Amino acid sequence: MSVYDDNTVQDIRKTAHAMADAARRAVLPFFRDAGLTAENKGEKLFDGGFDPVTEADRAVESAMRGVLARVRPEDGVLGEELGASNGHSGLTWVLDPIDGTRGFISGTPTWGVLIAVSGEDGPVFGMIDQPYIGERFWGGFGEARMQGPQGARALGVRGSRPLDEAILFTTFPEVGTKAEGAAFRKVADRVRLTRYGMDCYAYALLAAGQIDLVIEAGLSNYDIQAPIAVIEAAGGIVTDWRGGPVHEGGRAVAAAGVQQHVAALQILEKMPLD
Amino acid sequence: MSVYDDNTVQDIRKTAHAMADAARRAVLPFFRDAGLTAENKGEKLFDGGFDPVTEADRAVESAMRGVLARVRPEDGVLGEELGASNGHSGLTWVLDPIDGTRGFISGTPTWGVLIAVSGEDGPVFGMIDQPYIGERFWGGFGEARMQGPQGARALGVRGSRPLDEAILFTTFPEVGTKAEGAAFRKVADRVRLTRYGMDCYAYALLAAGQIDLVIEAGLSNYDIQAPIAVIEAAGGIVTDWRGGPVHEGGRAVAAAGVQQHVAALQILEKMPLD
Repeated sequence: MSVYDDNTVQDIRKTAHAMADAARRAVLPFFRDAGLTAENKGEKLFDGGFDPVTEADRAVESAMRGVLARVRPEDGVLGEELGASNGHSGLTWVLDPIDGTRGFISGTPTWGVLIAVSGEDGPVFGMIDQPYIGERFWGGFGEARMQGPQGARALGVRGSRPLDEAILFTTFPEVGTKAEGAAFRKVADRVRLTRYGMDCYAYALLAAGQIDLVIEAGLSNYDIQAPIAVIEAAGGIVTDWRGGPVHEGGRAVAAAGVQQHVAALQILEKMPLD
Repeated sequence: MSVYDDNTVQDIRKTAHAMADAARRAVLPFFRDAGLTAENKGEKLFDGGFDPVTEADRAVESAMRGVLARVRPEDGVLGEELGASNGHSGLTWVLDPIDGTRGFISGTPTWGVLIAVSGEDGPVFGMIDQPYIGERFWGGFGEARMQGPQGARALGVRGSRPLDEAILFTTFPEVGTKAEGAAFRKVADRVRLTRYGMDCYAYALLAAGQIDLVIEAGLSNYDIQAPIAVIEAAGGIVTDWRGGPVHEGGRAVAAAGVQQHVAALQILEKMPLD
């Protein structure tokens, strides 16, 4: 991994906060707005093929790209909605304007704006922002912090503990394909508590020391890069279901400690996935 | 239903807000506190039998009962944690200090404090408060409102629409018994989108016009009375799975309109439940 000088680090952090602020201003007028139109992208990501994309998604990504164009035009940008533009700094901003659009159109407060900065080998900084609550989690360059309705504090995972004491999250009970769902349920059968429906907010809860595992499948790079950076900075582990890197997307296991991580992988590796 | 004079109505509303304010002060020091100890009540409410009850639960209910003892000592009180005390006004406050304790110990922001006022025939006023977000939903006596991070506004359900356009929520995919879960899934197969994990917050989303159906089983009276009052005041419908009253608990269907309600009942009534 490259080393970044203090000025660069400070500028990246400042830029990410400015982007998240701009995203909040852009997204909140759409949230819980009765006139919000949910389109269908036409992709069958999950069983029902229901993947609404809204005007809000595009407005938020535009707002964030506007900040980048002004203050860091030398960086590349890769966004869910508006595609890729190359840079020449070696850094690429990887953006998911609204992670959890199904939760967004349902009015839940657990979707988020995901902002990551990627170097050659994956994300070096990440931010998860929940605009409605006014809660922000970020990590990278040796710092992991949050600010929210109750003030600001450092983030830190809860640490290693046995799988049978773990709290596990995923968004949809189906998880992904039938095989992926069956593998997930083998892990779920062994933990203390399994919860659903939190979208990217589950990764923030893991970084904040609240839960032990998040297991997801069918991810894109923009879904997972910000969570990777935040969780790793908070002392956690994020890999694919075989223990390899997952910053290009796919199937992810995020863990608050080594025991939970190893135990989950040992169960998942016995399950056929194709 | 009895008729309540304006002074009584105003006093009930004011008391409920004071109780919810006291509950916020009592509960927030416990939320996301690393030292929080989750006990096990010993009841097997759901498959794993995991039903943590915390010091927080009891502290919150005590705080609310303290307000009542001061300002409305003539009313009865029925709370999840500290039991029943009789009154002589004909009104009983029905309290769930933390609805969604599993969500609470996981750090999610979708548990809530539930406050209902019950007359002879069920709840006449209800309040759902989410202390961490600072969001409150209340309804009864011809008014349904919310206040939250984005200000205050009236609540209103989205209205009648076909089942295949509906957004459905429940907390656990298992829902209740195996038979109840199978019946739930028959409805879930017919809706546009099914989401999980929101605890009492799902009822608030229904009253706020965001979603169409909440279906739950295994409820106690203190779980459902506040949601009934808020949703009915916002124009929605709450019954048991056979169309009868549900304020004593059991299996609930909450609907944003007649079409969703009737369609859900028609599916549920074909399913054996015992």
